[in-house]
Amino acid sequence: MMARRVVLTARPAGRIAEDHFGTVEVTVPEPGDGEVALRNLVFSLDPYLARRMRDWTLGEPEWRDGTIIGRTVGRIIASRAPGFAPGDLVLGFGPWQEHEVRPAASLHKLADADLPAGAHLGPLGASGLTAWAGIDLLDPQPGQTICITSAAGAVGSIAGQLAKLRGARAIGLAGGPDKCRTMVERYGFDAAVDHRAAGAADALGAAAPHGIDGHLESVGAAMLDLALPLLSKGARIALGGLIAHYQDEAPIALAHFRLLLDRAITMRGFHTADLGAREAIARSELAAHVRSGAIRYAETLHHGLDAVPAGFVAMLAGQGAGKHLVVLDEAPSALAVVAAAHS
Amino acid sequence: MMARRVVLTARPAGRIAEDHFGTVEVTVPEPGDGEVALRNLVFSLDPYLARRMRDWTLGEPEWRDGTIIGRTVGRIIASRAPGFAPGDLVLGFGPWQEHEVRPAASLHKLADADLPAGAHLGPLGASGLTAWAGIDLLDPQPGQTICITSAAGAVGSIAGQLAKLRGARAIGLAGGPDKCRTMVERYGFDAAVDHRAAGAADALGAAAPHGIDGHLESVGAAMLDLALPLLSKGARIALGGLIAHYQDEAPIALAHFRLLLDRAITMRGFHTADLGAREAIARSELAAHVRSGAIRYAETLHHGLDAVPAGFVAMLAGQGAGKHLVVLDEAPSALAVVAAAHS
Repeated sequence: MMARRVVLTARPAGRIAEDHFGTVEVTVPEPGDGEVALRNLVFSLDPYLARRMRDWTLGEPEWRDGTIIGRTVGRIIASRAPGFAPGDLVLGFGPWQEHEVRPAASLHKLADADLPAGAHLGPLGASGLTAWAGIDLLDPQPGQTICITSAAGAVGSIAGQLAKLRGARAIGLAGGPDKCRTMVERYGFDAAVDHRAAGAADALGAAAPHGIDGHLESVGAAMLDLALPLLSKGARIALGGLIAHYQDEAPIALAHFRLLLDRAITMRGFHTADLGAREAIARSELAAHVRSGAIRYAETLHHGLDAVPAGFVAMLAGQGAGKHLVVLDEAPSALAVVAAAHS
Repeated sequence: MMARRVVLTARPAGRIAEDHFGTVEVTVPEPGDGEVALRNLVFSLDPYLARRMRDWTLGEPEWRDGTIIGRTVGRIIASRAPGFAPGDLVLGFGPWQEHEVRPAASLHKLADADLPAGAHLGPLGASGLTAWAGIDLLDPQPGQTICITSAAGAVGSIAGQLAKLRGARAIGLAGGPDKCRTMVERYGFDAAVDHRAAGAADALGAAAPHGIDGHLESVGAAMLDLALPLLSKGARIALGGLIAHYQDEAPIALAHFRLLLDRAITMRGFHTADLGAREAIARSELAAHVRSGAIRYAETLHHGLDAVPAGFVAMLAGQGAGKHLVVLDEAPSALAVVAAAHS
């Protein structure tokens, strides 16, 4: 069988643009022992992929020939692996193509198959796990104030809701009044500050009259410099992303770096891959919250392989709401369940 | 009684220079109830004071009229406080003047009076406690590699020796071949790298073939950028000082900031004031190591009140070795004991 695959036609030197992407036809073999054939339903457009696209040595060897390895949800259509049957939904890392064959051992069979396919890439996927891991590091106590960056986004919106569920005040930074309204009205943040607006520093100060005890950073230096002057002595920063700095290799400058020392602040980079045994706890907590409606989430859908380039660029530019997903037109059933979650 | 006091005659706008300092005559009253009169023996020239000098709002109210409040060791000459007798050595924070009267409650009677006066401001003082607190945060395990900045200095030299005493490899960064030789020959570092030399990054890599597990930062961005590419996944940075950035308020830029995220590194600012109950443990461990000779230390002595301006500027410029102290000419006995420690 042949399948179309989205690839990079060049390593982007400057900002990633639509014309860096192209498609090729690849041959999909028959599955061998321990392998499954699957039809991909949804691709996850994740900010961290921008760094892999710029520096292929950071990722798996497949990146070297321009293949993009991202998070996918697919449905098994043929299996030669015990425990995997046609119809099963599986989560994995793979190339962005319609059909493929993969070792079953590299796939995660979705236990919560009652939830929409997109949920496994959003609140139960990398975004939700990142939010959970970040909030877990910040360990918010009742009454503490937690500041979330990119707070209307896929990670930030869930992080704010998790902080609230632990009894903390959640305040958030986002770009533009619409996102700020969404944060408060849809996700229940206690305050939202538009970092693009004049007086953002004062507004953040007003939103955190007793200072900030924990800060989840997903964006970069501009947000850190807004938050640092408000961080309390001994506060924590969970560093989960630096999306503002994935498009170049320029040094990252902080006007308020000295406060890390003055206020004995702990800043810690983290990855969901390091959750280890806690990943199962995180997944089950997140699944329960999604089922009960305690955690709400949003998706921005892009339809079909050909929508990948524009969708990826839009995601990096902070357009749309929540998790950016590519839904394959060839998978109408997936489209339906994803759309249902979006309503 | 009158006493001469070193003061700042202006708030330094640029780099701190000798002509920012002056002296005034102040009246020293008779001690009241609960107070002691003391003759100061030694002043500690500490890097952090540079920030107080530039921004007087960071320190005690006395700073506002140009008084410098630093660490001092003095000998009590008259006491109206129970438990404090003439002849006692005391450590405290006070103005840089020959004689003074202070509440006894603000003073720390030196338990280890057998040790030289200067030792209480070096290996048993802020420098030693900073080194101890930094190494304690890094928690070096046998066989791990610990990287120390300003490693021939008062803090760094002790930190390296403490790391070795805990079974780790100690490697250090310092400016110039003399300091590097001192680190290895006098303090027992496993490797020393001259950060001013061409190829410093390669030399550091050769000194840490298995990467760096813990990094004690006292200097600033240039050192962090040398060390970050060598830090292991999950490594720790103890941020105890930023001496390269105390002379200005410019943003601090790191070329390798992204590695904090990529390698899940924890960076933590710390102060000796936050040691709490562990300060007593630190002091007793340090005193034992100084007595046994397991920890060696160096001092650069400046003689008399009038030597303060040049001494402070030399300390900030990284001249001399080890702890910079001002020894008062009026206190020949102190000079003798300090000089003995220096031999």
